[in-house]
Amino acid sequence: MKALIYLGPGKKELEERPMPAIAAATDAIVRITKTTICGTDLHILKGDVPTCAAGRILGHEGVGTVEKTGPSVTAFRPGDRVLVSCISACGKCEYCRCAMYSHCTTGGWILGNTIDGTQAEYVRIPHADTSLHRIPAGADEEALTMLSDILPTAFECGVLNGKVQPGSTVAIVGAGPIGLAALLTAQFYSPAELIAIDLDDNRLDVARGFGATAVVNAAGGNAADQVMKLTDGRGVDTAIEAVGVPATFVLCEDIVAPGGTIANVGVHGVKADLHLERLWSQNITITTRLVDTVTTPMLLKTVQSRKLDPKRLITNRFKLDRILDAYDTFGRAASTQALKVIIEA
Amino acid sequence: MKALIYLGPGKKELEERPMPAIAAATDAIVRITKTTICGTDLHILKGDVPTCAAGRILGHEGVGTVEKTGPSVTAFRPGDRVLVSCISACGKCEYCRCAMYSHCTTGGWILGNTIDGTQAEYVRIPHADTSLHRIPAGADEEALTMLSDILPTAFECGVLNGKVQPGSTVAIVGAGPIGLAALLTAQFYSPAELIAIDLDDNRLDVARGFGATAVVNAAGGNAADQVMKLTDGRGVDTAIEAVGVPATFVLCEDIVAPGGTIANVGVHGVKADLHLERLWSQNITITTRLVDTVTTPMLLKTVQSRKLDPKRLITNRFKLDRILDAYDTFGRAASTQALKVIIEA
Amino acid sequence: MKALIYLGPGKKELEERPMPAIAAATDAIVRITKTTICGTDLHILKGDVPTCAAGRILGHEGVGTVEKTGPSVTAFRPGDRVLVSCISACGKCEYCRCAMYSHCTTGGWILGNTIDGTQAEYVRIPHADTSLHRIPAGADEEALTMLSDILPTAFECGVLNGKVQPGSTVAIVGAGPIGLAALLTAQFYSPAELIAIDLDDNRLDVARGFGATAVVNAAGGNAADQVMKLTDGRGVDTAIEAVGVPATFVLCEDIVAPGGTIANVGVHGVKADLHLERLWSQNITITTRLVDTVTTPMLLKTVQSRKLDPKRLITNRFKLDRILDAYDTFGRAASTQALKVIIEA
Amino acid sequence: MKALIYLGPGKKELEERPMPAIAAATDAIVRITKTTICGTDLHILKGDVPTCAAGRILGHEGVGTVEKTGPSVTAFRPGDRVLVSCISACGKCEYCRCAMYSHCTTGGWILGNTIDGTQAEYVRIPHADTSLHRIPAGADEEALTMLSDILPTAFECGVLNGKVQPGSTVAIVGAGPIGLAALLTAQFYSPAELIAIDLDDNRLDVARGFGATAVVNAAGGNAADQVMKLTDGRGVDTAIEAVGVPATFVLCEDIVAPGGTIANVGVHGVKADLHLERLWSQNITITTRLVDTVTTPMLLKTVQSRKLDPKRLITNRFKLDRILDAYDTFGRAASTQALKVIIEA
Repeated sequence: MKALIYLGPGKKELEERPMPAIAAATDAIVRITKTTICGTDLHILKGDVPTCAAGRILGHEGVGTVEKTGPSVTAFRPGDRVLVSCISACGKCEYCRCAMYSHCTTGGWILGNTIDGTQAEYVRIPHADTSLHRIPAGADEEALTMLSDILPTAFECGVLNGKVQPGSTVAIVGAGPIGLAALLTAQFYSPAELIAIDLDDNRLDVARGFGATAVVNAAGGNAADQVMKLTDGRGVDTAIEAVGVPATFVLCEDIVAPGGTIANVGVHGVKADLHLERLWSQNITITTRLVDTVTTPMLLKTVQSRKLDPKRLITNRFKLDRILDAYDTFGRAASTQALKVIIEA
Repeated sequence: MKALIYLGPGKKELEERPMPAIAAATDAIVRITKTTICGTDLHILKGDVPTCAAGRILGHEGVGTVEKTGPSVTAFRPGDRVLVSCISACGKCEYCRCAMYSHCTTGGWILGNTIDGTQAEYVRIPHADTSLHRIPAGADEEALTMLSDILPTAFECGVLNGKVQPGSTVAIVGAGPIGLAALLTAQFYSPAELIAIDLDDNRLDVARGFGATAVVNAAGGNAADQVMKLTDGRGVDTAIEAVGVPATFVLCEDIVAPGGTIANVGVHGVKADLHLERLWSQNITITTRLVDTVTTPMLLKTVQSRKLDPKRLITNRFKLDRILDAYDTFGRAASTQALKVIIEA
Repeated sequence: MKALIYLGPGKKELEERPMPAIAAATDAIVRITKTTICGTDLHILKGDVPTCAAGRILGHEGVGTVEKTGPSVTAFRPGDRVLVSCISACGKCEYCRCAMYSHCTTGGWILGNTIDGTQAEYVRIPHADTSLHRIPAGADEEALTMLSDILPTAFECGVLNGKVQPGSTVAIVGAGPIGLAALLTAQFYSPAELIAIDLDDNRLDVARGFGATAVVNAAGGNAADQVMKLTDGRGVDTAIEAVGVPATFVLCEDIVAPGGTIANVGVHGVKADLHLERLWSQNITITTRLVDTVTTPMLLKTVQSRKLDPKRLITNRFKLDRILDAYDTFGRAASTQALKVIIEA
Repeated sequence: MKALIYLGPGKKELEERPMPAIAAATDAIVRITKTTICGTDLHILKGDVPTCAAGRILGHEGVGTVEKTGPSVTAFRPGDRVLVSCISACGKCEYCRCAMYSHCTTGGWILGNTIDGTQAEYVRIPHADTSLHRIPAGADEEALTMLSDILPTAFECGVLNGKVQPGSTVAIVGAGPIGLAALLTAQFYSPAELIAIDLDDNRLDVARGFGATAVVNAAGGNAADQVMKLTDGRGVDTAIEAVGVPATFVLCEDIVAPGGTIANVGVHGVKADLHLERLWSQNITITTRLVDTVTTPMLLKTVQSRKLDPKRLITNRFKLDRILDAYDTFGRAASTQALKVIIEA
């Protein structure tokens, strides 16, 4: 089968690989029909993710059809249409019992990281019963590809952790795909103000179209001042960090109101300054989270009931044969204005 | 009347001052019978609290008797025995309505800071109806002095924010008075493990006596290793920072388990490193808080029902005449082994 | 001044009355510009509310202008435009400190009940600082009349207590004004299904227009069966009782899913059967609540940010001179199709 | 093997039965070393549980040793010492994913009900990976028998659902084994008042020994008055119903304070009156729950850390041969003063 292989920092190829086989009784083999590329895949390609070794098939998102199941799999049968969760969960360990699937002792984020992933014609899914989701009849499968990772990540790490509430004031720092996914799902809770902050005017325009009530271009260096002005000097109830660098995290510290929350979504490579000399008395909460994908069934319901339209995140489509082009388009998002790209196998 | 005056960095005197008078209709004048010294008073004396000007009467804790009330005060009358909250709250502003009294727009921590405080024979209490608490008949007033600040601070900022739960594992970094107050009130929730961490073996001995199930002397520099060993490599569900310096905050980052909480109680003068490069995926929560004293009525109930014995925190007693000695004893806690000192007016 | 007087069961008149005067230092006198009629006013007129004596000026809703304030009032001045809360709250008692204003020991629901109310040219508002809300500049005051009672009641007692969530399934039993207000505010949380149940097809049509995803006419006696069919036999996550009779409460028991919540909004005159023989093992929650109006500031924000349009509830407008006609129109809602009626003073 | 067989209403015998065998890949066979009798077993014997057919081996509690495991079981191996949960949970269905194991679509309370139970030498446990708990080395297994059902039931349905808090006032209606288990676990949260209510003075004496701060004998018919007197007319924050008849549920309605919670633990055979005509405005919460046993790992920690001593519930011990005597002793608890009886296989 064809598969996109990580070959070490800066290198990747579409290669021919053997079909995956059932390795454990709880495995399923899924034939991927649609997958996509995540910002994390770009991190891997930069060499930033040491757990991911050269030779690995990349990708942790996708929809497809169950091809084969191990003897312990009871929830799925060959032919079932399924959504692949980016998080594999055994459903049994101490973490899974607390719904913290991200830290499953034999799972977590392993697909396209420590085991082969979904940017291929077929993928082996461990703990299939608790790591796949049945696709409802009549669903738009392309849209559901956004439920493998980006939407639950934005919703769980940003919106839920950020305690977005009706009438509240929310800032989203970073209007890339993950920030925009937070913008879409924050609206589940009817906040009064949704401020999008980015350096790229095009992305800020998209943010407006997605529901931002105000936008702030941070290029001038006075983003915090602008946010304070927009909030009558009060700051925001929720600041969602959706970039992953120190400066944007510190911006969140600068704009969070007393009693507010900073919900970190970004993947950080270095430490940030925490200004406790100012924040110790501000009654704030800071959260971090690797997505647990516990809300995927709920998100599926919001898609089916048309409260959420994931397709707004999809800008480009490629065949698997042209996945290198897809990476190129996605990797140069500033110029291509790409958000999420769909790859059809 | 006699009052302890802050005279600028490093300087204080017991001086004669005029009696305070009702300045607003919601004021009460309270004759102080017992007060105490807070670590924050030492911060002021170091010159670390710029809001506190020279000439200020220090102190934000105490019990006493209502002497006089402004015309708008309805909940108290002269002669009532009262507990002074370290936080003044109007009960009307946006923050007060959310029970975030610490950020009351005309109150908050003002006593012994921006207005004259309780280390005197009399004190003016603004917003008296919502800033004093009636002392139940038969209560031990000396014990209740600990409910002005230290116990609600430890409980709200440390234990409640830290989400201490039955069966959970808790580390308290810092076994000074505030850490010990957290140790006492954490036991309201029956955690399985309560690890006290300090540099001072005497304080760790006290911590054991107060209910710590394990103690760690951090002097060797391997406190994190010791905690990880005590928790089978898992870390703690709750890490309470009760010191206020970068090193102890970073220790909390090192020992918090996935899904755990760092509850900051310490007053910080400088920023700390936040190791997001490691913590971004650990599903942790960090909280800060200036005490709101919303739990004071509840703490009063726990004292009255003998679930909490605040007197365990009291080691020394002085008359107001000898308040400079009291400061000396409290300020040299390492050698005097003082915890909280009572000053009787 | 003119005022609508309750004269005992079945009797009311528009009479001339003396202007109210400041009685306590915390009072304000408000000149009412717009008021409305509540289902509770009809209950009083039926003689169902024994606390309300003959001679009382009715009404507990309205907007207006502060005319005069007692000496302890600090948050409002004459000339301020204000929204009157149906609940008076001292902000100081044990209940108010827990944000349960409905049970304020010197307040609660007293307006138009135990003291004179708002269906008059002027009204005395006790505890003015904590019982009035400032109207933002440029706000539509008629719309805000809906924030005195009906919207916070529907939202707090129905939607918040009912824990409506993104993707959840909600049934609202009763599509009168209060049920429709629940329907509007439930959408703050993006539930997947919102089923309105009533006996009146006109009201069900209105419910559809207001966002119901399905409607059930209960006239046939098989409403529970219809709801179970709509939910694939699972029942609803939230059942909001917005009628106040035993049959509709039992219907909620019949349709609530395992793990679900019945949120009672209705005012009940008699007991209901609680089918514990079936429900004991169903992990359900039942809540009751007299509105606390703690969410009024938040609801104001949702109106200002156009997440909520309260005017959709207003169907008729009358001058105060014609308030008896307003009562007639509101009282015969089945034939007049009236929802809320505005009375302009 | 020997097993206690239900033979229809009023009839049971200790009979010889074939050993259970693995029926599904996720099954385990456990050799029972200690089991116990539940009030529910008495209900079955009265014929009150129609799902339990004649011929069934009774019992849903116990500890033992894994004898054999199906091919899909990964968490346990033969020889492992285990605690049997009274609730079987697949860990995969919609309810299990929400931690509502009681409603697992292929599990729930099935042991000793719809499949053979634990009052036997061996038992087949379905969904073994998620329905057994490993016994820590050195644990007192007899004590842990109390963690199969009675302690998680009392804790989850009574204490957790009842939101017992530090300083709060709690009444437990019924001081039988389940009420006493609620009394023990309520103390995890340091309530100020713990009032036990029963008709049996012996049980009330036991309750006092277990930590009740006050006891009320309801025989005189004025239990509600006594509770109101004990609470200065305020009522209780939490009323735990641990009997299961209408009168005790209504007593809970009579004593719950505004804002309080009634947590139902009792198994009810008939409906009860819900006095909505009084309660609609009292801001109360009523909960029901079949135990989910989600807190069993946490309860294990509290036992291991000596915050909870389950053996206080054990009054009698029998060999399996004499299980009929054990039933007799347990069934006549009023005269034998038995709480929980241990049966050793």
